[in-house]
Amino acid sequence: MRCLLSVLLLVSSAAWAQVLPSWNEGDAKTRVVAFVQAVTDEKGKDYVPPAARIAVFDNDGTLWAEQPLYFQLVFMLEQVKAAAPKHPEWQDNPAFKALMAHDQKELMKMSHRPLLALVGIANSGTTVEAYDLAIRDWLATAQHPKFKRPYTDLVFQPMQELLAYLRENGFKTFIVSGGSVEFMRPWAEKAYGIPAEQIIGSQQQVEYKVRNGKPVLVRESKFAFVDDGPGKPVGIYRSIGRRPVAAFGNSDGDLQMLQFTAAGEGRRLALIVHHDDAEREFAYDRQSHIGKLDKAWDEAKANNWIVVSMKSDWKRIFAFEK
Amino acid sequence: MRCLLSVLLLVSSAAWAQVLPSWNEGDAKTRVVAFVQAVTDEKGKDYVPPAARIAVFDNDGTLWAEQPLYFQLVFMLEQVKAAAPKHPEWQDNPAFKALMAHDQKELMKMSHRPLLALVGIANSGTTVEAYDLAIRDWLATAQHPKFKRPYTDLVFQPMQELLAYLRENGFKTFIVSGGSVEFMRPWAEKAYGIPAEQIIGSQQQVEYKVRNGKPVLVRESKFAFVDDGPGKPVGIYRSIGRRPVAAFGNSDGDLQMLQFTAAGEGRRLALIVHHDDAEREFAYDRQSHIGKLDKAWDEAKANNWIVVSMKSDWKRIFAFEK
Repeated sequence: MRCLLSVLLLVSSAAWAQVLPSWNEGDAKTRVVAFVQAVTDEKGKDYVPPAARIAVFDNDGTLWAEQPLYFQLVFMLEQVKAAAPKHPEWQDNPAFKALMAHDQKELMKMSHRPLLALVGIANSGTTVEAYDLAIRDWLATAQHPKFKRPYTDLVFQPMQELLAYLRENGFKTFIVSGGSVEFMRPWAEKAYGIPAEQIIGSQQQVEYKVRNGKPVLVRESKFAFVDDGPGKPVGIYRSIGRRPVAAFGNSDGDLQMLQFTAAGEGRRLALIVHHDDAEREFAYDRQSHIGKLDKAWDEAKANNWIVVSMKSDWKRIFAFEK
Repeated sequence: MRCLLSVLLLVSSAAWAQVLPSWNEGDAKTRVVAFVQAVTDEKGKDYVPPAARIAVFDNDGTLWAEQPLYFQLVFMLEQVKAAAPKHPEWQDNPAFKALMAHDQKELMKMSHRPLLALVGIANSGTTVEAYDLAIRDWLATAQHPKFKRPYTDLVFQPMQELLAYLRENGFKTFIVSGGSVEFMRPWAEKAYGIPAEQIIGSQQQVEYKVRNGKPVLVRESKFAFVDDGPGKPVGIYRSIGRRPVAAFGNSDGDLQMLQFTAAGEGRRLALIVHHDDAEREFAYDRQSHIGKLDKAWDEAKANNWIVVSMKSDWKRIFAFEK
């Protein structure tokens, strides 16, 4: 009997060591694990039944890298360039001119609107299947400028472990991203274990048409929904219909999703990933054009949300690290 | 050994008898079962891996009754009446006048637009939680005029069995309804085993606001998305991101969803429920204002889709039948 007990203790401490192995022991990991234990303890006061265990994750900067430019934007801008010969009217468009001149400074000064307008037009008229193929083709060959690797290698290993850990504990995991659903669907299931139907994102309008007797969905130039900032709780309401119990983000675009989640009744988890590791990844926050973390950081401090330091809380960032 | 074999055969024939028990033996049941066996047979040419086993169901008229008036419309029109004192400007509105006069004929002559406009205004300004409560309250007390029972009793028993049968065979089941998501979420999980996040429907605009320091979602008067007719494949694309392998409907509003599903590569199932049982439920098709089945019926015949006769294919329609 004593022997059995020893074995059980051994197994359980081994299991503990295996939880979130790429996370250093410390406040962030301890609080995440404590939250999961509390909401899954059927006899505890914080118990949450499995159906309500909804966890939402921002993608860019939270589950994978986003510097020096959102990866989807790199793809989209290449699509704009490729479509340029069919659009002579773009030659006088300031956004197009800045883009062709690689005038990063000018591009940063602009609002996103004129760029998104070009992007929308560049991809309109094609079927959703053709667009999906274009994304897959690009992802198969494009390389990140700093890491010289496919973009899909740049998913954060500790977050992959966190997703798996939550699912093992009965959570349903969703992506809620400012990026478009189409761009995530081809690789998110393999990378994160999140199927297409659990990805919420921005949406370009599509229209149902019958072409050569075959029903197809054709992309239009307008955006139907922008899933960013205050759009994130709206996207969650539309697609999930419940207030999540846990939310994970990294920038001001996630602020309302974190607020909306944290304001629910009962125990909640709100976590922000802070990019403070210039050596292994990138270091940026309040002053950054991409993934700006300013208001959400203040709010995190004021409300005691978990702020993860990539530098000190994560043993490794990418799976390809030694 | 022979004994074991007999037992196995017995078990397997008992299991067969238990499949879709409220369905009469016949062409419809045989074809549904043959489809499920084909796509789940790992060695067969029609095999579909579990992740791609997406089945989509219309709600009104397919999973529950819809006559003499869509149940949600009954609720909404009561909401309009309740909001009338706050909207003196409605007194000159033809749709409102017809509604208050119970002028069914005049209402049927109108397009849905002026009625939906009233509905949108009647429910705007409240939080989504308050709206959810109003729906639950109404469902708890309202009774169907013919059956004198709560509307939620009017779910079709054979379709509940079909949903469960598909899920037992690895399918993920979704509702894709012209009705609004909010109206289905409070009861669909219990009635159909379909969670809130697998319900696609029409959407009124909601906006994120902070009221008294608490983040809430507030309903606006405009519709953000109408999930009917050609909107259904669009809703499927947005929320699921894959072409379903099986689709179930009952009216012309489901035509494009059925076409879109049937046109996919590999084996597909398209099924229409035909309301031809005036005694046990209602009988209506080509001439009906509610749940009109005309073009979709022709298409079903032309393409050999399954057409279920409620009268002859279903042993019983409702669970409360003797």
